[in-house]
Amino acid sequence: MKKTQTFLALTTAFTLFNSTASFAITASPENWWVGMQNDSLQVMLYDNNIANKAWQMVPYKGVEFKGVTTTNNPNYAFLDLTISDNAKAGTLTFKAEDGTTFTYPLNDRDKKSANRHGFTNKDTLYLINPDRFVNGDPSNDSVAGMKEAANPSFKGGRHGGDIQGVINSLDYLEDLGVTQLWLTPVLENDMPSYSYHGYAITDFYKVDPRMGSNALYKTLSAEAKEHGIGLVMDMVLNHFGSSHPWMSDMPTADWVNFDGKFENGKNATSHARQTIQDPHASQYDKRQFNDGWFVETMPDLNQRQPLLSTYLIQNAIWWIEYANLSGIRVDTYSYSDKAFLADWTKAIMTEYPNFNIVGEEWTTNPAIASYWQRGKVNQDGYTSELPSVMDFSLQEALIQALNEEESWNTGWVKVYQSLANDFLYADTDNILVFADNHDMSRVYTELGQDLAKTKLAMTLLLTTRGIPQIYYGTELLLDNTPSNDHGDIRIDFPGGFKGQKANAFTGKGLSADQQEMLASMKKLLKLRQEKPALSEGRLMHFSPKQGVYSYVREHNGQTVLVVLNKNQQAIDWDLSYMQEVLKGNNKGRDLISEERVDLAAPIRLKAMQARLIELE
Amino acid sequence: MKKTQTFLALTTAFTLFNSTASFAITASPENWWVGMQNDSLQVMLYDNNIANKAWQMVPYKGVEFKGVTTTNNPNYAFLDLTISDNAKAGTLTFKAEDGTTFTYPLNDRDKKSANRHGFTNKDTLYLINPDRFVNGDPSNDSVAGMKEAANPSFKGGRHGGDIQGVINSLDYLEDLGVTQLWLTPVLENDMPSYSYHGYAITDFYKVDPRMGSNALYKTLSAEAKEHGIGLVMDMVLNHFGSSHPWMSDMPTADWVNFDGKFENGKNATSHARQTIQDPHASQYDKRQFNDGWFVETMPDLNQRQPLLSTYLIQNAIWWIEYANLSGIRVDTYSYSDKAFLADWTKAIMTEYPNFNIVGEEWTTNPAIASYWQRGKVNQDGYTSELPSVMDFSLQEALIQALNEEESWNTGWVKVYQSLANDFLYADTDNILVFADNHDMSRVYTELGQDLAKTKLAMTLLLTTRGIPQIYYGTELLLDNTPSNDHGDIRIDFPGGFKGQKANAFTGKGLSADQQEMLASMKKLLKLRQEKPALSEGRLMHFSPKQGVYSYVREHNGQTVLVVLNKNQQAIDWDLSYMQEVLKGNNKGRDLISEERVDLAAPIRLKAMQARLIELE
Repeated sequence: MKKTQTFLALTTAFTLFNSTASFAITASPENWWVGMQNDSLQVMLYDNNIANKAWQMVPYKGVEFKGVTTTNNPNYAFLDLTISDNAKAGTLTFKAEDGTTFTYPLNDRDKKSANRHGFTNKDTLYLINPDRFVNGDPSNDSVAGMKEAANPSFKGGRHGGDIQGVINSLDYLEDLGVTQLWLTPVLENDMPSYSYHGYAITDFYKVDPRMGSNALYKTLSAEAKEHGIGLVMDMVLNHFGSSHPWMSDMPTADWVNFDGKFENGKNATSHARQTIQDPHASQYDKRQFNDGWFVETMPDLNQRQPLLSTYLIQNAIWWIEYANLSGIRVDTYSYSDKAFLADWTKAIMTEYPNFNIVGEEWTTNPAIASYWQRGKVNQDGYTSELPSVMDFSLQEALIQALNEEESWNTGWVKVYQSLANDFLYADTDNILVFADNHDMSRVYTELGQDLAKTKLAMTLLLTTRGIPQIYYGTELLLDNTPSNDHGDIRIDFPGGFKGQKANAFTGKGLSADQQEMLASMKKLLKLRQEKPALSEGRLMHFSPKQGVYSYVREHNGQTVLVVLNKNQQAIDWDLSYMQEVLKGNNKGRDLISEERVDLAAPIRLKAMQARLIELE
Repeated sequence: MKKTQTFLALTTAFTLFNSTASFAITASPENWWVGMQNDSLQVMLYDNNIANKAWQMVPYKGVEFKGVTTTNNPNYAFLDLTISDNAKAGTLTFKAEDGTTFTYPLNDRDKKSANRHGFTNKDTLYLINPDRFVNGDPSNDSVAGMKEAANPSFKGGRHGGDIQGVINSLDYLEDLGVTQLWLTPVLENDMPSYSYHGYAITDFYKVDPRMGSNALYKTLSAEAKEHGIGLVMDMVLNHFGSSHPWMSDMPTADWVNFDGKFENGKNATSHARQTIQDPHASQYDKRQFNDGWFVETMPDLNQRQPLLSTYLIQNAIWWIEYANLSGIRVDTYSYSDKAFLADWTKAIMTEYPNFNIVGEEWTTNPAIASYWQRGKVNQDGYTSELPSVMDFSLQEALIQALNEEESWNTGWVKVYQSLANDFLYADTDNILVFADNHDMSRVYTELGQDLAKTKLAMTLLLTTRGIPQIYYGTELLLDNTPSNDHGDIRIDFPGGFKGQKANAFTGKGLSADQQEMLASMKKLLKLRQEKPALSEGRLMHFSPKQGVYSYVREHNGQTVLVVLNKNQQAIDWDLSYMQEVLKGNNKGRDLISEERVDLAAPIRLKAMQARLIELE
């Protein structure tokens, strides 16, 4: 049995063992903790005919064994436990009537676990495709027995980047000034092809051996923390890899939507996310969107199945607790069942009230994106529990703003109007803002490889409201000029792989433009940390005019003006329209040049210049 | 004094007279009614030094004279009255200490007045620019003493159409099948140029003599009612004509925004309507939008001034009561003060709980449009009282849908997505839908003078949710091919003016395409009246595919399928995806051909055909 092999290969601290050497039970999760808010635990056991065993638990203070849930598949059994407040860490022992025995660890939690702080607008996220970032351990580029070997010359192949590579880069990342890492999924993707992207998970409890191990992932989290950097896990709730053992041995008949069949694309998702909100949507369309498969190699999970729902909720909490995460990014958020999404998110936020979770809802319609944010009063009565959403509207607007000529309805006004829609959101501070990500053409490419435009874009991103996310290599002007192929977008990071001419870590081989971009990003990221107004401050913006967009961030009496000149020539800029902010105070300090600025007279804006001026 | 002349020229039943022949007081409103919900009345008196008179009212049962409000301008006085429930119709008499006397009529209301029904989705509105529709009275084309004479050969000039012309057309309009008339403003616009459009009002209580008279407007309302047609008045709250006497003799210093000065466009409105909702908007931008002038010839009213607010509220109620209106259309709705808008709308809806008012908020962003609809729970706590809004999003989508090639994000999907945003609205039945109006290029022009496309567009409009509005002449394929100049859009209606070759009223000179369009519109409008499902029914729509967009309207067991084929070729269309509607019922009747249709087999859709099929 494939799963048994997987289990034996686990390098993490081990969990349970049966009494006979030739036989192995897989338990998911492999351990749990005492002192959780939710006192329920359901452990999925997987083994031949395991449903037919009658288990008894050796009495354990504070733990109640409530029974076993079985399904039509005799190879699965679900143990239902209650772990009360007074239970202490230790080992549970279960015995079957046939003499089978296994043990189950209950660990102590880290004292600070429940009150951990998730990422906030004080942070900046750095998004990495780990296969394309740094190859820190060439010995695991290919792993015997796994379906896909390394093939660095193929755009869609595995290039060898790994968790060790990220660990090796922590000094660079701290120096850059980012404070959170979002790695695309590192869990096992034992798929025949395109396994590098990580979204076709074949084991929800195991880091892919080609990326490292569960233990190494935990090490990354700990070492990043030493550098002041948090770890955000990319989780996939909607689908999984078709090579997952579930596909050949379904826990229940309804584990996968559309009866577990793709039927030549007939059951592909319509991507019509608006069917969730649309009061006129047919049930037919709602099902095509929600239950439809992403692609044939990624079957669609039916989260309405309660055993699966519990499995996914516990899986997320397990990883938070195990790897000490500071946040979660959820892939294809709205594609999952909406009632389940509320349950899943609420369960996590109940365990960790100060945590953060950002869901991907790829729409430029803020009415739809905001629907999913916690606190939004929706007309259909749906109560979402998701703290953070992504601002695809601003991403699109930012690119348009810098590429379009200025007019009443083109150029900066796109950004202005996008942010004006913030009245739709329940919490505009907890919105992820980005110029690009791993699924779209890079910002430098979209802006026509224009350094000045890219600097303006990133300045806006790092000084407007929300939580900025930078895609790896933007600080080095990485681009995907050859094509919008994902392989070109997810390009190898300079210095991360053998044989590269440029090296971000040593600075060797970087062009003047790359050095300028890097310096600019470092400066802005440093300012974000030094000036809370820029990260946490209240935003007030002014209607763009003459190619200049300006706004103000204010926090506890600290006020910073941001004035972005999109013109290809210098302009003297009269700030008198900002009187409600200046209130007669004409003393400013330029945060980039550190020079004093007299705000009573027009200020000089150089061509394509961004000025950040703090009121004194 | 100009105002005195105006007053003497009034042809309506007269109101009040002072005791000396050489002296005239203008009172606004000129009369009021007993039995109103709101027992307060404030009458604006205008005359030289009238503020310095001490008025007394001859005692009148049920009426209390509460006092006089005066301003810094001695030419205005505001009489405050309370008219209790037990007051009977009659004439109030006011006397000043200098012997001046005037009388003020209190009339009986029509018994059905308070419970009148406003236009609903059972109706279809027909929008007319009366100057360009039918010249029913050539004697009033030019009126002595008024600033602009007729000039039919100039696009922006007065062409001579009038209220009598609309009265003469009522048989045609009833036969066409429309049930409400929205005339662009007919009140006095005594402006030097472009006065034909009506939005630069110079007397809020008087129909422009070149259009007819107050009495004739009332006649139109009564005669239209005989034809089953209601009358919707186009009201302007935001601005007025710069030739209005107020501009040379302001009632208060704050009557007009920006101190009554345009300042070479410095105080022009920014049109940035999103500043109303934008949580980040500066006070500077909010003022530029709300207080900014539309154009120099249309000064911006300051509705925060309570005397003006009361004036505008009473003016609207006066016209409803006087002319027996079935609705109001409000121009540039959001440009007025938002607190005033809530007061104004609530005052009207309190007097007439079943009335309807539609506000123009020209935005394709449904999050902004829906903000203004009554019942919407807005995040900023603003409670709007406006029952109906306009769907500019659907208008844009409809044109795009028919002009674009089909793809995942072009073509019909634009309409589908626009309607999917209906979750934002508090009442999707009370939304005005239209393919064009008097401010934008005509639908036939936008669709490349394609008859089949135009028929599809109007079929969708007359069968989707909401209240359809047809711009005059769409039934005859009027177009503005020469240009988007308002003069080309507001083209003379065929048969309405001397010397025209085609005549809509006799049918003479109409092309085959015009006849086909007219017949199609008549048929659809008849079906709307015969099949409540098409007008009032619940809408359920299906994701467009292969160039076909389909939906269902259902009302009290009556179910009509609408299937719109955008392809240039016929297609056999399998309806099995509609099982949740069909529920195994395979018997249908085509409402156009009146043939029976077997829904178990694929149905034939001809190229560019719209099929309406009622389930039997």
